[in-house]
Amino acid sequence: MFEKIVSRYLSSLDTTLQQCVDDVSEHDAPELGLMLRYAMGWVDKSGMPYNKPTGKRLRPTLLLLCCEAAGGDWNTGLNAAAAVELLHNFSLIHDDIQDASELRHNRPTLWQIWGSAMAINAGDALFTTSYHALHRQSRVTSPEDMLVLWDIFNRTNMELTRGQHLDMRFENQNHVTTDEYISMIKGKSAALLASCAELGSFIATSDRGIADHFHEFGLALGVAFQIRDDILGIWGDPGITGKSAATDIISKKKSLPVLYGLTESPMLAELYQKDAFSDADVKAAVAELVQCGAQDYARSQERIYYERALQSLQDAGAKGDAAQLLHNFATSLFERTY
Amino acid sequence: MFEKIVSRYLSSLDTTLQQCVDDVSEHDAPELGLMLRYAMGWVDKSGMPYNKPTGKRLRPTLLLLCCEAAGGDWNTGLNAAAAVELLHNFSLIHDDIQDASELRHNRPTLWQIWGSAMAINAGDALFTTSYHALHRQSRVTSPEDMLVLWDIFNRTNMELTRGQHLDMRFENQNHVTTDEYISMIKGKSAALLASCAELGSFIATSDRGIADHFHEFGLALGVAFQIRDDILGIWGDPGITGKSAATDIISKKKSLPVLYGLTESPMLAELYQKDAFSDADVKAAVAELVQCGAQDYARSQERIYYERALQSLQDAGAKGDAAQLLHNFATSLFERTY
Repeated sequence: MFEKIVSRYLSSLDTTLQQCVDDVSEHDAPELGLMLRYAMGWVDKSGMPYNKPTGKRLRPTLLLLCCEAAGGDWNTGLNAAAAVELLHNFSLIHDDIQDASELRHNRPTLWQIWGSAMAINAGDALFTTSYHALHRQSRVTSPEDMLVLWDIFNRTNMELTRGQHLDMRFENQNHVTTDEYISMIKGKSAALLASCAELGSFIATSDRGIADHFHEFGLALGVAFQIRDDILGIWGDPGITGKSAATDIISKKKSLPVLYGLTESPMLAELYQKDAFSDADVKAAVAELVQCGAQDYARSQERIYYERALQSLQDAGAKGDAAQLLHNFATSLFERTY
Repeated sequence: MFEKIVSRYLSSLDTTLQQCVDDVSEHDAPELGLMLRYAMGWVDKSGMPYNKPTGKRLRPTLLLLCCEAAGGDWNTGLNAAAAVELLHNFSLIHDDIQDASELRHNRPTLWQIWGSAMAINAGDALFTTSYHALHRQSRVTSPEDMLVLWDIFNRTNMELTRGQHLDMRFENQNHVTTDEYISMIKGKSAALLASCAELGSFIATSDRGIADHFHEFGLALGVAFQIRDDILGIWGDPGITGKSAATDIISKKKSLPVLYGLTESPMLAELYQKDAFSDADVKAAVAELVQCGAQDYARSQERIYYERALQSLQDAGAKGDAAQLLHNFATSLFERTY
């Protein structure tokens, strides 16, 4: 269903994105422009058109849907939509360096092709391009409202770096509470979705109150989405998720159910002292996570955030087809199995 | 002399800088805040006050001086001044990773202490903080003028990443022309100085024409400064510069005189094919750079940009004590020996 929504906006969005990157490209640094276009999924590393799908354009779609659901014309939000997509792609460039990830969307990552130094700089350039895209929003948005959008964008970026910092920090931290974890995913996973909803609805309404409700909608949806990912990482059906069974247990990932289990179950805490798990250990860990209530806890947390998302959408007074699409989209994510 | 100018602004500037970093700091990510404060030179790596001088605050000082020279009250430019200083320090964090530099202002660099992944992210956070500081400028600057400042800032950041890209690119490029080189230093070294002059004067006047002249002043001054650095890297007196003699020849740095020499002198081009230089090679290279006219060329280029800087200051109608200070400052840099 989401693909159908995306397709409504895709052509105009892509034109705007290309304009933003063209605006900042200089003839004497063609390789820098190439790196940005590669990161956006438009070309291969030689600059030839690349026609396989890379990103899903989820974030700009959410922004434009929220613009519509708040009563606006989605065409008026295109530059802000480009800004969040550029920002997302910037963060992927730096994330891939930080995580030493070699592949992204089945292609070599930027640092794999051009080296880390060049890739850090290309990320910085795309970060700047995202601010440029947001600035272009002033073609339809008043200067006063532009200051609000800019402030939202700054706060979002601080949240993203805070979330990323905590995520890296937790890898080397013995004890992480479930509250700390949820605070981390609010920054790392949910802040940008919250920002999309807030920006789109504010462009439509110039109303901070309405935009706050949309912000809460995006934030809660993002947290629920991440918790569902955590559940699927342990209990997902390999035939549906495409990942191996209990993949987050094997990698000892500190996801929400595990963090709960480590606090509640001395047996699990002892098991997690081991350097590596046998197949029997993995089975025992999964069973113990059910037994000690970690699965129920994660599901109940997912439900809390899911319901908060729907409530916020209602509080925002979202209306029309776009509101229905947002509602359906949220519902389709809840307790999803893929 | 410059230290005396800096001291006029330093206390207010530092207060503003600290407020900007405080604004973006979150209680649950104290180490991220520590990294930002370390980068700004306020604390050591444990968070204890650090009282030795680190940065010279050259850029915010230039901004505030240009604000005054354009007829403004420097107190009205403090947040923009904080923005350029934060931006400068962000770029140093990423530069040090890209160049694998272990020391900065006689202290370990961020990535040396916290690792590259954490340091890339802290750089991104400081980049965002610089945009936040510029946004705070809206407390005294009108929304319409804020859009102009924001656009200047975006363009500056694209210039910085372009210059950094070309600088890294040239290391692995066989032939670099002097025009390409000057285009690179306009981005890497001069763009931020141009931005400081432009931002400060625009805050004072809301006049794009005047701000353009100030921009040209800062740009030309930055280029002249870099060319002088290149001259000192070959002919500087070790007793005054504190560096070894002909240091840029020994490291085979592609500075302006060398690039000119490589084009004009077949003998130099042949010499530069060698993997390493003997003492005799270094002496021969320095002598040949004089002989083939590279030294004269670099000096004449420095003079061209120096005179362009002074002319722009005059065209801008800069006035008062601050204008005199800017003039003296530029003159003190021209043909400097340190």
